[in-house]
Amino acid sequence: MPQSAPLRKEFRAFVTLSPRWRDADVYGHINNAVFYEYVDTTVNEWLITSGALPVPQSDPVGLVVHSQCTYFAPLKFPGAIEGGLGVERIGNSSVTYRIGLFQGSDVAAALALFTHVYVGAKSRKPEPLPDGFRDKLNRELLR
Amino acid sequence: MPQSAPLRKEFRAFVTLSPRWRDADVYGHINNAVFYEYVDTTVNEWLITSGALPVPQSDPVGLVVHSQCTYFAPLKFPGAIEGGLGVERIGNSSVTYRIGLFQGSDVAAALALFTHVYVGAKSRKPEPLPDGFRDKLNRELLR
Amino acid sequence: MPQSAPLRKEFRAFVTLSPRWRDADVYGHINNAVFYEYVDTTVNEWLITSGALPVPQSDPVGLVVHSQCTYFAPLKFPGAIEGGLGVERIGNSSVTYRIGLFQGSDVAAALALFTHVYVGAKSRKPEPLPDGFRDKLNRELLR
Amino acid sequence: MPQSAPLRKEFRAFVTLSPRWRDADVYGHINNAVFYEYVDTTVNEWLITSGALPVPQSDPVGLVVHSQCTYFAPLKFPGAIEGGLGVERIGNSSVTYRIGLFQGSDVAAALALFTHVYVGAKSRKPEPLPDGFRDKLNRELLR
Repeated sequence: MPQSAPLRKEFRAFVTLSPRWRDADVYGHINNAVFYEYVDTTVNEWLITSGALPVPQSDPVGLVVHSQCTYFAPLKFPGAIEGGLGVERIGNSSVTYRIGLFQGSDVAAALALFTHVYVGAKSRKPEPLPDGFRDKLNRELLR
Repeated sequence: MPQSAPLRKEFRAFVTLSPRWRDADVYGHINNAVFYEYVDTTVNEWLITSGALPVPQSDPVGLVVHSQCTYFAPLKFPGAIEGGLGVERIGNSSVTYRIGLFQGSDVAAALALFTHVYVGAKSRKPEPLPDGFRDKLNRELLR
Repeated sequence: MPQSAPLRKEFRAFVTLSPRWRDADVYGHINNAVFYEYVDTTVNEWLITSGALPVPQSDPVGLVVHSQCTYFAPLKFPGAIEGGLGVERIGNSSVTYRIGLFQGSDVAAALALFTHVYVGAKSRKPEPLPDGFRDKLNRELLR
Repeated sequence: MPQSAPLRKEFRAFVTLSPRWRDADVYGHINNAVFYEYVDTTVNEWLITSGALPVPQSDPVGLVVHSQCTYFAPLKFPGAIEGGLGVERIGNSSVTYRIGLFQGSDVAAALALFTHVYVGAKSRKPEPLPDGFRDKLNRELLR
């Protein structure tokens, strides 16, 4: 579990997210489970818009095997949120992304890790990352 | 039920919404229930950011008594969505909003109606719309 | 817009739904948009578990073209919710369902209408309801 | 990250959850972020229905500071899901819950950890767990 909130400059790509009225819970803060919708969207939106992987039609396809989030500060509605994206680790058939969530500050409100294992669309067995995808991750998301 | 999709120019205010990976269902389109999250957010974000009503701390407070949506075209992830807002009817203690959802087109993908009845924060009984709020609705949202 | 809340006995089939902590908004009530998740689930769960239509692999497939909900009383977390299901109208290629949401009372907290138009899985053009499906709707869901 | 899926008998309390049509993503499986709605609900529903803590009106109030989930198998719609609950660690002012999600099997589809820090409802500073609450956790949720 990380001890301190990362800064905006520690991330390589950014996705803009908009909170919804429904995201806030009875305490008036964005609910903890919703942070993962932001995280999931940051990863998948980057995969699609950067051209890295044509999800959901890609083969192999990424299965989420682990995710985690450390919450440093509340997020609220309304106010644009930025999902900052980087790569923590590139394995043979897996990628662990690092996602920071920012709202009106250069200090992250939350830091998440999110691990995809890539499996054959039919076989459902782990496959090596396609070369072009691995190159793109190295070039555009590695610190 | 409206027969044809409204145009962007028929709305008076706009709120930017971002779809999420999770919003798409097994058919690859945004799920029908999620449209109402966009609708609800359009109304409440305008109320807050325009200064019309300080929800959720306002008194009176709006309770949703009716909502409806006609779906003309699918919405998809990713791609910014605009919620267009207007007022359909201003009653003594109720407001019916008219919301169009747009994604990459001036023709709405969906048209919703959304009725708030304003009740005392404690009494939970209908109260007349505050004068300043009524004026703002007339000035900024009426066609 | 219906004027009074329907009773449990006016529905033909029931689906059990469980509210989530996240469903409640800042006022401590289930958010209005979430009612449509309950409605959508009631219809699709009945279609699957009754054997009426093997969604999402069915052909034709149902597209939602209109939905509406009248809210009579709040729903809250926790406490099981029942989705009562009936059919309001069976057309040539469309079905309008009638859904009542109940929580600890025989009087509905909300009444929704939900219209599917059935289109060819590939053609996306309206097709007549399959005979077996129409028979099932008539037999099991019509008042 | 745990290496193997826990069994039903390793949990002390259970909450019944129902998946929704909307929970499934384009791959036909429950989306990874939704698992956290199940986790969050398991904890809060137990807190309320067991009488352990009257959330959301409790003082102190629990803030989520960390959560994580390891995914062993997909969950699907429809089909009741059970959230199994236990306590991993009880600190001076924090509790780490252990939540297993089960659907039609005694082997968990996912295992989550979820940490609440208890802070004063007004002060927002950490406070010791109330004695009655600590006793209840020890008695009813500790392995």
